[in-house]
Amino acid sequence: MQAFINSIIPPLAKEENPQSFFPEAIHQGFLQALAEAFAYCGATAPNPPVGCAILNQKGEVLTVAAHHRAGTLHAEALALKQCREKGLLEQAHTAIVTLEPCNHTGRTPPCTEALIKSPIRTVWVGLPDPNPQASGGLARLQAAGFSTFLLPEIQNPQAQAMARFCQSLLAPFSRTITLETPWITVKQALTPQGSMVPPHGQKTFTSAASLKLAHQLRRATDAIITGLNTFLIDTPSLTVRHIPDHSGRAPRLLVICSRKPALPQPVIITAEQNGFIVEQCQDLSNLTALLKKHHVLWAMVEGGPALLKALDEQKLWQDWLTIQSHPDAPDTLHPQTAPWLDSPITPLTLFLAQTKTGHSFSL
Amino acid sequence: MQAFINSIIPPLAKEENPQSFFPEAIHQGFLQALAEAFAYCGATAPNPPVGCAILNQKGEVLTVAAHHRAGTLHAEALALKQCREKGLLEQAHTAIVTLEPCNHTGRTPPCTEALIKSPIRTVWVGLPDPNPQASGGLARLQAAGFSTFLLPEIQNPQAQAMARFCQSLLAPFSRTITLETPWITVKQALTPQGSMVPPHGQKTFTSAASLKLAHQLRRATDAIITGLNTFLIDTPSLTVRHIPDHSGRAPRLLVICSRKPALPQPVIITAEQNGFIVEQCQDLSNLTALLKKHHVLWAMVEGGPALLKALDEQKLWQDWLTIQSHPDAPDTLHPQTAPWLDSPITPLTLFLAQTKTGHSFSL
Repeated sequence: MQAFINSIIPPLAKEENPQSFFPEAIHQGFLQALAEAFAYCGATAPNPPVGCAILNQKGEVLTVAAHHRAGTLHAEALALKQCREKGLLEQAHTAIVTLEPCNHTGRTPPCTEALIKSPIRTVWVGLPDPNPQASGGLARLQAAGFSTFLLPEIQNPQAQAMARFCQSLLAPFSRTITLETPWITVKQALTPQGSMVPPHGQKTFTSAASLKLAHQLRRATDAIITGLNTFLIDTPSLTVRHIPDHSGRAPRLLVICSRKPALPQPVIITAEQNGFIVEQCQDLSNLTALLKKHHVLWAMVEGGPALLKALDEQKLWQDWLTIQSHPDAPDTLHPQTAPWLDSPITPLTLFLAQTKTGHSFSL
Repeated sequence: MQAFINSIIPPLAKEENPQSFFPEAIHQGFLQALAEAFAYCGATAPNPPVGCAILNQKGEVLTVAAHHRAGTLHAEALALKQCREKGLLEQAHTAIVTLEPCNHTGRTPPCTEALIKSPIRTVWVGLPDPNPQASGGLARLQAAGFSTFLLPEIQNPQAQAMARFCQSLLAPFSRTITLETPWITVKQALTPQGSMVPPHGQKTFTSAASLKLAHQLRRATDAIITGLNTFLIDTPSLTVRHIPDHSGRAPRLLVICSRKPALPQPVIITAEQNGFIVEQCQDLSNLTALLKKHHVLWAMVEGGPALLKALDEQKLWQDWLTIQSHPDAPDTLHPQTAPWLDSPITPLTLFLAQTKTGHSFSL
């Protein structure tokens, strides 16, 4: 891990440049905290994915941790526990957290108190907590005498880039908290001719790298939205394969869109045997309520042209990943943000940055 | 742990009494495996709770483990891992498992192969696997040269008692696999006068011990079934309190029965904030399908007189726990098995044996 630390700037250098102070050790710590948090993306709902790195006074990373799932330790508490188990707690000097430490007692005690009890007195935070129940953590730490740094307030290009990644990681949770509706990402594969239909006799047409990417997106999301026709024609299993799924993942949601009075029983049985909880959506105006009922933060769409057109017409998506295959060349990726969103920051941004797929694309 | 081992009978004593061979060390190992498995009851769905103890040649327990949740190690694999981590794997001689080791590759590799790779060559099994996809484990072990013992085949009262506890532990899963419908347990509290209605001005009337028992039952089950009136009049939170809930438990199911066209939004919001996935059941004939959709193995009912009467009329319960309060005396428990069931073995049997509540009752 410590190979990531390219240069170490002592924390006290802040006095020289207070507005744009952002040591390289902190930058590297954020990259590690983000990577660890992303590894649990798709397993934490209804909680957000959060990562934490703990550094010693020299700026060396002592440990990195993430929140694994609701009811288990928060990232900060797990990182402190790991430090303690390694016998490094006395060296803990600075905490880097992708999200403001919580200040309330939920299923676990507040992280602010755990930090206050530790030797740590400097905290770098990626984002303020959008959940009013949990916020106030930074103020609590300041009151306890901590030096606190909030990325969006730092006038430094790397700090701003890290802030955007933290926002990207949190985007589905922020949307759920503020708008009470989850984040929806469409995944669409196109042939070189721009068609979604595989050539005759083939079930798929994209590369092995694109197939892996689709499974990585399934792993990172809490629900899949598909159409009954896709299910009947392609009989996809929609499970995570090609890569390991989250260990101990609970059965997750599959929404099958169809205007028919009911789904055919074999479709339900097949999907349930594949580990899904199946909901039929007869009317797309009920889609977000269905997702919310199942505490979904981030859903992905794997459907045919008719479903994608309907979702687009009803503005029921936030970002859209087009995977295009080419004759004699690797597939290309085209991520898009919905034009009706006021911010280009989406979970797809972090997803593509974190999953090394060998595709060419620009963010 | 080893305090449980009262007497050790060498495995070879079998030759003297082949039909009723059941050493006390094996009996004690089953008790420990059952207790460990029961601790995860309510967290394993759609998988069954399973426990495993590993003994050395002298019959001393080296380790005890259970299956924690779907996607994590099975009980046998975790027990072997724990033995390895303790440096005791070479001493592993006998495995005691509450359920036949699986013989298929699901989300984890088959347990039969893990056992074959270990020094263990004797396996005691509580029950054959009712899941045709996973069965065949005993035959596989026999083919690999194992000595295998199946509790129901042993003519010994203690072995039969352990077999019944293993069946009790597995009853909700067995029912789900064979009948495609989950197990439903009703919990009902009665005043000394036999009424379900608390005296004026009180929200509850049973003792602290009974309250704790109700929360233990919530912890051990996968879903709660209630009525809209209960929710509107009592505004229960229905969460697990008074005892710790399972760590990392996924949001679980709350079925609210009501013939109204829809549930009031505040009811849904309150229940979702308490961590539930909420389903309305408008017609009790759909109840088991709703539970099955959410992969529920064991559901408990906490409702008022009208719901309990309707469930009874439609034979929609398998066991029923009545808690009766008395003036100036501890509450008493009356567990009952549905008269339409062909076996008195129910999860409530094991639940009451495992949760020491200070109540008086007879099984």
